[in-house]
Amino acid sequence: MIAAMEVCGNPSSVHAEGRAAKALVERARAQIASAFGADGADIVFTSGSTEGAALTLGGRKLHGSAVEHDAVRAWIDEDLATDASGRVHIVDPANSTLQLANSETGIVQTLPSGLAVTDATQAFGKLPVAFNWLDTQMALISAHKLGGPKGVGAIVMKRGTDLPAQIKGGGQEMGRRSGTENVIGIAGFGAAAEAAARDLANGVWEQVKEIRNILENALEAGSKFTIFVGKDQDRLPNTLCFATPGWKGETQVMQMDLAGFAISAGSACSSGKVRASAVLTAMGYDEVTAASAIRVSLGPLTKKEDVLRFAEMWLEKEKKHRARAA
Amino acid sequence: MIAAMEVCGNPSSVHAEGRAAKALVERARAQIASAFGADGADIVFTSGSTEGAALTLGGRKLHGSAVEHDAVRAWIDEDLATDASGRVHIVDPANSTLQLANSETGIVQTLPSGLAVTDATQAFGKLPVAFNWLDTQMALISAHKLGGPKGVGAIVMKRGTDLPAQIKGGGQEMGRRSGTENVIGIAGFGAAAEAAARDLANGVWEQVKEIRNILENALEAGSKFTIFVGKDQDRLPNTLCFATPGWKGETQVMQMDLAGFAISAGSACSSGKVRASAVLTAMGYDEVTAASAIRVSLGPLTKKEDVLRFAEMWLEKEKKHRARAA
Repeated sequence: MIAAMEVCGNPSSVHAEGRAAKALVERARAQIASAFGADGADIVFTSGSTEGAALTLGGRKLHGSAVEHDAVRAWIDEDLATDASGRVHIVDPANSTLQLANSETGIVQTLPSGLAVTDATQAFGKLPVAFNWLDTQMALISAHKLGGPKGVGAIVMKRGTDLPAQIKGGGQEMGRRSGTENVIGIAGFGAAAEAAARDLANGVWEQVKEIRNILENALEAGSKFTIFVGKDQDRLPNTLCFATPGWKGETQVMQMDLAGFAISAGSACSSGKVRASAVLTAMGYDEVTAASAIRVSLGPLTKKEDVLRFAEMWLEKEKKHRARAA
Repeated sequence: MIAAMEVCGNPSSVHAEGRAAKALVERARAQIASAFGADGADIVFTSGSTEGAALTLGGRKLHGSAVEHDAVRAWIDEDLATDASGRVHIVDPANSTLQLANSETGIVQTLPSGLAVTDATQAFGKLPVAFNWLDTQMALISAHKLGGPKGVGAIVMKRGTDLPAQIKGGGQEMGRRSGTENVIGIAGFGAAAEAAARDLANGVWEQVKEIRNILENALEAGSKFTIFVGKDQDRLPNTLCFATPGWKGETQVMQMDLAGFAISAGSACSSGKVRASAVLTAMGYDEVTAASAIRVSLGPLTKKEDVLRFAEMWLEKEKKHRARAA
């Protein structure tokens, strides 16, 4: 990204400076296609998956479920059932959308063949994904979920998919999404995708999963009142969601923040708002339980000592909470 | 921007890392408000003016003119007349849009009171603008036009303007434009806006204008076949647009590129396409003249020697062109 800052041309300009900027964008496109198993697919850069959802789902009223991200829920017919394990049951794939992995619980879905749109934002970079083998028309991905910058993402489409332009003008991205490209962000997205694919191949996320499991086991051993959401399900390797009925998620976020730990209640986007997780209520949890859920995300740099310190701190606070509540 | 890369939180998260990211975004918002004379106005970050045009003009069919940027033209009722001097005549300001300055000719418009939307993308940073004194409901601005990164911009609105959300989800930007913020880009936008305001106050663009005029005079002295568009009009200090009927703009771009100069035929966004400038045809120039127009943009670092070298090179090629054409 720092190197890209030196390239001041506009990718649509035909002079040397423009071509240099264009080359950065196209290099990133190839890096992302390779990392996402989407060689030969069309990749349209966006400002992130929220925009991607608006461009691919807006006006279509596809079938979907309440476990989807709010950016997807804004556009769907929310009529698909979710079972207690977090699995969504698709009836009409060609007119449905289904996330690949959930942002709050990490639960991974099995995508049916012929699906219209998948929100792969949470999965890309942490799970092996081969878009070309998914048989899904379009997928949404975002750079900041795999270590890249915030504010850049892409729509990945089977070659030649018809996507009517909603942001029009200069005709960039083959007319599908106009606007001068976020060259620095796109360069960062490409580099992050390449690095993420390398990490995945090197087993980095297997190690993260082990540490996540150490954390889960430590918490489970210490608190018999806590529910571990999706524990027996296929989950993202770095996500841990747990609910302690009666102890509000926001309170836990604030207490752990003071202790130096950044965690979330619900998804990050909506965590500023005080409300129960729609994901957990969709899975059948009651409001009190859903409002007590927190999400802990690990990264490749999270160490065993970190999670054990977290568990110790959290269990101490949980004990105090119970003492107060008693 | 490099400092912002170290801030990895999500601005919507309530923990310390999230608050640090939020602080960067809010600092940039204040910097931009100050530089644009818009203290107290609402500033909604976007991925640039193309998105800004879609969000403020989409579905409204405001009156506008063919001299607007393609990102604006995509949404307007193109029924406003432009005179030979490039001035657009507004009849119904509350239902019209008008650019502050043109991207190809640099011609500056006088905005009528009560205008609905102005595309201030080209003007911001190069002309003194005080949004709070314009009496325009909304303005579009973009970072890369004032030295910031590509792919980030904003809609500036009178406080409390109703802007229905088109990109929905997490509720960022007071619900008007959801999506995790482009924190690095926004930080760059803020810094660039502050620097641009400082440059403007220090007379940097007055010097650029002098050098632009030296270039214009040198070219005019050397070629009696060339038309200088908007020469007697109020123009951006750094823009020079000239047409040499019969010598295609694209050819000139390629020839000057080989000589080490980056110039454009038409706007940068559409310069990859071979067609006559809609801006010039709207001003009444014929197709052959419009297709021969090129745009030279200067920056604060452009020196007198640079433009004289450009003039010498260009005049030499123009002479060769005439010899071939004869």
